[in-house]
Amino acid sequence: MNHLQDVPLAKAYLLLNHGPSTIVTSEHEGLANVMAAAWVMPLDFDPPKLMLVLDRNTWSRHLVEGSGAFVIQLPSRRQAELTLAVGSSNGGELDKFARYDIATARARQVQAPIVEGCLAYLECRVIAEPHNQEKYDLFIAEVVAAYADERVFSKGRWHFPDEESRTIHYQAGGAFFATGEAFQVVKA
Amino acid sequence: MNHLQDVPLAKAYLLLNHGPSTIVTSEHEGLANVMAAAWVMPLDFDPPKLMLVLDRNTWSRHLVEGSGAFVIQLPSRRQAELTLAVGSSNGGELDKFARYDIATARARQVQAPIVEGCLAYLECRVIAEPHNQEKYDLFIAEVVAAYADERVFSKGRWHFPDEESRTIHYQAGGAFFATGEAFQVVKA
Repeated sequence: MNHLQDVPLAKAYLLLNHGPSTIVTSEHEGLANVMAAAWVMPLDFDPPKLMLVLDRNTWSRHLVEGSGAFVIQLPSRRQAELTLAVGSSNGGELDKFARYDIATARARQVQAPIVEGCLAYLECRVIAEPHNQEKYDLFIAEVVAAYADERVFSKGRWHFPDEESRTIHYQAGGAFFATGEAFQVVKA
Repeated sequence: MNHLQDVPLAKAYLLLNHGPSTIVTSEHEGLANVMAAAWVMPLDFDPPKLMLVLDRNTWSRHLVEGSGAFVIQLPSRRQAELTLAVGSSNGGELDKFARYDIATARARQVQAPIVEGCLAYLECRVIAEPHNQEKYDLFIAEVVAAYADERVFSKGRWHFPDEESRTIHYQAGGAFFATGEAFQVVKA
């Protein structure tokens, strides 16, 4: 974990701006879970907020409603199989950390595990919006800590040193895209 | 526009699941605008809903609040310069369609122009949620029509025939990523 560097909170949205798929961890009363989530996006810059769609049938929903916190982490391509696995099983039925032999550390600002080896982390506290949660399964949260692997994200920009270190974007049925070529456009 | 094929509404989320950047068009009382939006994502499958963050200082916000409708369209890499241009100018100060010489057609189910040559289109009607709109600049909408260029999206999957036809993901400061390599993961 020595390559993790703090991302200034006002720049945290840049971790999510390109729409990568994520892994969500949470914990409540000593019980933890890990799941995949493609439906995560920034909502505001500073203080940073983000949104997560969290189905009412998931075990993570129960934990997040209990704790009011979760961690968004960005898996690399080398973690795509893990991402699919934790997105295809139910934490109420098995301990996914044990089943998939997931190495964890502790989050810094919230009570939750984090998955080691991810590219970036956004620790979040839920902003209570019962109507959105009940009607839309939509959770709005403030990002209270952000950090990233300096080998792939520094000075507010992603820069992938190799194919396996790229962020990923979920389609469906186990199909993903890797984040592709970076290019620069100049204002007309 | 002959390559545009209907996307079944229950599959419309697949157009946005990988987190591409978008162009938003809207129209109210004969006035239209076009802007860029990276903060768009699915909210539900069927009937499909999506979310759009729409800053209160934009001209499009005024139009969308008036009409209750907008169109999300996915530009290709060859439209990245256009995407940056419409995202960097204010429709209250200039007619962006004229300034950037944008060819348009009419949307099918809502009153709005669409930008010709995009990869996919999602026509949306706002679901009134005044609290979200006022507090978070957040608009929830139902997708009432979806169609895509069959050369890049068919049978629920993206398949890009060349680099210039890929969807794009905005970072910041004119920097984008193209959607990259597709790969398949098998469940553990």
